[in-house]
Amino acid sequence: MDLNIEDITKTVIKFCSQGADARMKFVLERLVTHIHDFARETRLTTDEWRAGLDWLEACGRICTENRKELITVSDIFGLSTLVDEINYPKPPGATQGSILGPFHTTEAEEKANGDSISHDPNGEPLFVLCTVKDTKGNPIPGAQVHVWEADSNGEYDIEKLSHSGPDGRGIFHSDDQGEFYFDAITPVPYPILCDGPVGVFFKLSGRHEYRPAHVHFMFEKEGFDNLIT
Amino acid sequence: MDLNIEDITKTVIKFCSQGADARMKFVLERLVTHIHDFARETRLTTDEWRAGLDWLEACGRICTENRKELITVSDIFGLSTLVDEINYPKPPGATQGSILGPFHTTEAEEKANGDSISHDPNGEPLFVLCTVKDTKGNPIPGAQVHVWEADSNGEYDIEKLSHSGPDGRGIFHSDDQGEFYFDAITPVPYPILCDGPVGVFFKLSGRHEYRPAHVHFMFEKEGFDNLIT
Repeated sequence: MDLNIEDITKTVIKFCSQGADARMKFVLERLVTHIHDFARETRLTTDEWRAGLDWLEACGRICTENRKELITVSDIFGLSTLVDEINYPKPPGATQGSILGPFHTTEAEEKANGDSISHDPNGEPLFVLCTVKDTKGNPIPGAQVHVWEADSNGEYDIEKLSHSGPDGRGIFHSDDQGEFYFDAITPVPYPILCDGPVGVFFKLSGRHEYRPAHVHFMFEKEGFDNLIT
Repeated sequence: MDLNIEDITKTVIKFCSQGADARMKFVLERLVTHIHDFARETRLTTDEWRAGLDWLEACGRICTENRKELITVSDIFGLSTLVDEINYPKPPGATQGSILGPFHTTEAEEKANGDSISHDPNGEPLFVLCTVKDTKGNPIPGAQVHVWEADSNGEYDIEKLSHSGPDGRGIFHSDDQGEFYFDAITPVPYPILCDGPVGVFFKLSGRHEYRPAHVHFMFEKEGFDNLIT
């Protein structure tokens, strides 16, 4: 079948939605249209196309249980934040959410308020006291809060070869005043892992390689939306 | 920084083009815009976003030297054909090009006209005679032609565990009349490898799993564009 630059899109959309449900059909129609529009608008060269596919392949190949390169790619392209904003729009007065990022794990231990989350002897001690409130300012008791941070070198526990259990992590609950508190270390800027495809992208695009210092929080409370904040 | 669904795109574009050259800046600007527009238009859910990234990761992880899943993805989304059409537009009267596909290799041997390319005793014998002509109908002698086909089970040599050298392949040259000819087997429809992410996609989208029977040709001749046809 002879196809030209313009009519190929509707042909592919037809092929891609022979048995899909309505949602899948719609998502594929939009996906194919945007991929094709991108190639047409940029007059994508054969070399660029090949380099892009090789780069995507490398992103997948470097992934492990503890290294999610494609999540990082989604983060640096702003897609993670956008999807979070689309799915969990914040009401006025609420703290802006941020993305989960690649360093949250499910292995953090339950901690009591006042406990320490860090075993790093070189970190600068930091006492963290937070209050969980609704948008009217009322304290929310019993909220579950996941907390995680890097060590004093900017490394998360799961990035270390010697990783054998959670460090710099904990799960807390807000008390009757909506408060939770713990000992930690002062966070430092941490590098985005640049020994793989993301590093190649950073070099090509001239982006900086460091993220600002973070202590991450993720809140859950029955009756409230499961916000990642 | 507070970002909303609309203004995040220009922020990410700014981040992504700090040191890039003009071409890279333009390609990234279009790429980020299309990725974000896709997410906004579909109101992409968190589950869909995650499933998409997991799928892309799986595409990369299954790749080997002889299995290029992302090329197949590009093929089934029509991107390979589109990029070929953009970069090598065909003049009126020329044979429409098709995509290189994942089964071309560099290990094919030079053959003389009349040689056989297949070692498959079960295939139906086929004699192939072709003429290479310019768009005015004049024969083109001395064109190099890569030829490849699957065996009588629809399997290409590099797909086989027992693969130890080229089979179903050859490199020919057109003679003074522009002709080249060889013994082959009648091609049969061949399956797209569906034991990986592409198979998952085919199930979800309801696409058929077979490609029509092919003998592939790739032409090269000095003084002509390097057309994949």
